[in-house]
Amino acid sequence: MTQTLQVDLGTRSYPIQIGAGLIDEPELFSSRIAGRQVMVITNETIAPLFLERLERTLGGFEVTRIVLPDGEEFKNLEMWSRIMDGLLNRRFARDCTLVALGGGVIGDITGFAAACYQRGVAYIQVPTTLLAQVDSSVGGKTGVNHALGKNMIGAFHQPRAVIADTDTLSSLPDRELSAGIAEVVKYGLIRDPELFAWLETYIGRLRARDTDALVYAIERSCRNKAEVVAADELEAGQRALLNLGHTFGHAIETGVGYGTWLHGEAVGAGMCMAADLSHRLGWLDAASVKRTGSLIAAAGLPDRAPADIGRERFHKLMAVDKKVLDGRLRLVLLKDIGNALITADFDPAKLDEMLAAVG
Amino acid sequence: MTQTLQVDLGTRSYPIQIGAGLIDEPELFSSRIAGRQVMVITNETIAPLFLERLERTLGGFEVTRIVLPDGEEFKNLEMWSRIMDGLLNRRFARDCTLVALGGGVIGDITGFAAACYQRGVAYIQVPTTLLAQVDSSVGGKTGVNHALGKNMIGAFHQPRAVIADTDTLSSLPDRELSAGIAEVVKYGLIRDPELFAWLETYIGRLRARDTDALVYAIERSCRNKAEVVAADELEAGQRALLNLGHTFGHAIETGVGYGTWLHGEAVGAGMCMAADLSHRLGWLDAASVKRTGSLIAAAGLPDRAPADIGRERFHKLMAVDKKVLDGRLRLVLLKDIGNALITADFDPAKLDEMLAAVG
Repeated sequence: MTQTLQVDLGTRSYPIQIGAGLIDEPELFSSRIAGRQVMVITNETIAPLFLERLERTLGGFEVTRIVLPDGEEFKNLEMWSRIMDGLLNRRFARDCTLVALGGGVIGDITGFAAACYQRGVAYIQVPTTLLAQVDSSVGGKTGVNHALGKNMIGAFHQPRAVIADTDTLSSLPDRELSAGIAEVVKYGLIRDPELFAWLETYIGRLRARDTDALVYAIERSCRNKAEVVAADELEAGQRALLNLGHTFGHAIETGVGYGTWLHGEAVGAGMCMAADLSHRLGWLDAASVKRTGSLIAAAGLPDRAPADIGRERFHKLMAVDKKVLDGRLRLVLLKDIGNALITADFDPAKLDEMLAAVG
Repeated sequence: MTQTLQVDLGTRSYPIQIGAGLIDEPELFSSRIAGRQVMVITNETIAPLFLERLERTLGGFEVTRIVLPDGEEFKNLEMWSRIMDGLLNRRFARDCTLVALGGGVIGDITGFAAACYQRGVAYIQVPTTLLAQVDSSVGGKTGVNHALGKNMIGAFHQPRAVIADTDTLSSLPDRELSAGIAEVVKYGLIRDPELFAWLETYIGRLRARDTDALVYAIERSCRNKAEVVAADELEAGQRALLNLGHTFGHAIETGVGYGTWLHGEAVGAGMCMAADLSHRLGWLDAASVKRTGSLIAAAGLPDRAPADIGRERFHKLMAVDKKVLDGRLRLVLLKDIGNALITADFDPAKLDEMLAAVG
């Protein structure tokens, strides 16, 4: 069963295909490739698993490859520059296509290379982690990290297609699968109560990687993200709701030492904190806070911040977040399961109270 | 007398201001700057001439500066990366503004930095060469060179404003002034016969840097470019006409050794070659070829290619041009003064004939 979704962005619209075995279907790729030259960018972990299969599928094109080392620490200008050199050395023309085969790091760096090569060429996302399939491969955010900040250098550049093959999740570690589920829970919390309820029932099947459950969760997540992105491509308003749990989450990631918690784990705990604060502000009922915590725990994610960060350090860590405007912290909070808002207009004493209860 | 033009690109529309003494007018800048943080990027030649004046004008903002070495050889990723480091070291936020004070190199590299910093921030062009004022500062093309090709890495990113101060041309060497005039002649040839006729009458005043003549020529050139860009922002069709004389010109630049001829000088000779070929194809009358050559010469530009490149080498040099599609060379040619077309559908024997006559 293959699901197809359309991201509606005028002339830059593109399809998201979701299903099992899609990297073996030549037509899915060839219909989205204009020229003859194709470069597949992947990493050393994914290459031995899926690169040859994908290259076979792309047999009708002139395919070359770049295999980067695996890890967030390689999402930098040096690796991006290596892709640029590769494209120029092989004399790739403006009608070439880049294919990102990997998780969020490969997707972001490949998208940014496509954004800048000859002022913009085509690229296709083939995400191989659940996190990338439900989140980073959709929306056109591309970029690399800098020693002084994550994702500080990049561009908005939409892919020609996202091809999410659930088979590629078979080798994903359980912890990373759970981290991806955190973002699925997020869509439920901010705008899709039906998805939230589905997760409460079928979280077990999802964690067991049942294909139908995966396809449903990915399709529904992408549809939510695509709707938000279509309404707000450049992140002026509604798109900010996608950051539910992320301000607390980033503080946790930095606080425990970057790389100790996975991003999705920190976001999971961060969403529980956002629910807790929303309740203390009188906006969200206790039952919804409890449902949130239970689902996060059932997903195999931490449902609270680590005890050793402490209230004061949390404040400091959050102060450097990009969501601080004119010195006021803006947070995504909840009115109900499926109903979020972004606001700087809340009682800071309640934030203190929540952080003290955590720390 | 200040002239204002609007480049019509929907939500990304922006004004081009042209006049004497504009870098001393705070309102022109402050009305286009959203946040508090401003970074001026310039080079070592321009800094002693105009940087302090501009910084005084920007007195109401938190202004920092980056002064790069002067020259096309510094239009590279290393200098671009230096701007990125500067922005991050000073913790510039997403609502910051970059100001490019300089010629095309500074404008292109600053625009590309603005395109990529935090996925896109604002920038203002303050072009200080005639070439930049009539051409490169308008249209949103940004980028840097790579060892394997010019402008191979870049992005389309529109400025918030172009502020062309004719005072800044006072220190421009005569040869560079003429090189800028080549692009003015180009607009006349491809779509503005009235501008061409005006140039035939007033070329002397323009070369003497008469303010009114400069403002007229810059305003008219920018209007032509803005109309073309508004109709074809991403260079699919009409925008290609702006390349009149450029395929021959690039071959000359490379053929004589890059940097020996100025870009505008090569384009001047290239336009004469395009006119010559158009005549041989029976598309352009002899009188128009003569008018073209006479105006190019009167502008202080070479009206023919250097004799020592030769026909065969010209063919080779043109074969690597980006305008080659599916192995067929596409050229911008003339039907009349003010009427150009782009085509691969011409008799190659006539091209040979023209190149043999040159070499």
